[in-house]
Amino acid sequence: MSADSKLSFAKPSTSKAELEEGTAFTPRFDEHGLIGAIVTGADGVVLMFAFMNAEALRLTIETGEAHFYSRSRKSLWKKGETSGNVLRVRELLTDCDQDILLVKVELQGEAACHTGRRSCFYRRVEAGADGVALEFVTK
Amino acid sequence: MSADSKLSFAKPSTSKAELEEGTAFTPRFDEHGLIGAIVTGADGVVLMFAFMNAEALRLTIETGEAHFYSRSRKSLWKKGETSGNVLRVRELLTDCDQDILLVKVELQGEAACHTGRRSCFYRRVEAGADGVALEFVTK
Repeated sequence: MSADSKLSFAKPSTSKAELEEGTAFTPRFDEHGLIGAIVTGADGVVLMFAFMNAEALRLTIETGEAHFYSRSRKSLWKKGETSGNVLRVRELLTDCDQDILLVKVELQGEAACHTGRRSCFYRRVEAGADGVALEFVTK
Repeated sequence: MSADSKLSFAKPSTSKAELEEGTAFTPRFDEHGLIGAIVTGADGVVLMFAFMNAEALRLTIETGEAHFYSRSRKSLWKKGETSGNVLRVRELLTDCDQDILLVKVELQGEAACHTGRRSCFYRRVEAGADGVALEFVTK
């Protein structure tokens, strides 16, 4: 694409066949204009989950670095802007009905999670006699 | 747990520290009573993404087989009930702020995707001179 043309996304087809078996990328943003993004490392390990709006998705594709939309701060953010833990995009995929993204990244730094851990998924749900509790997988 | 006591989930703590560093499992369902679930194979490959309500999550934990909530059909469903592609749960994790689940499963059958493919993520987003398009990773 030329540097001055902004990437935009076409409206999703109402045809299930086109959506699922076509080659047109028509991401299905939700009623808040957001789409969920699963982020994995190049090794496939799930690191985090966040949301993108159309602008974050456009910037992710154009710059090759993952951008998201923060629902709590109501603003666009580039992952790693302050922490240095930038996510370089290696591959971007979408699912059958194009309402979720899968972003495979190379993590520049140690941590994708704001707690300082590599992955946000550091606790396992364990069922016991008294109900369920979390057990740390990574300290 | 005894067979006649139904598992329920406590209200999320308003303390960020408890939510992120505690051992109480207090899933944060959204305004529709749903929580997103990333499903991976035992090998870590991302297979699908779907939503659970409290009942689907309870059944998933109690039966060891993944249950979800269909937003389009507005009903609970057990994955594989008709297709036979049941997902046996090997590990269930949650993220730092407990608003997403990661379900590691053993897939009974060939396909987690309703299209017949193993994974729902069978198309890659490729940027070209004319914008973006999807390219099949799995036919």
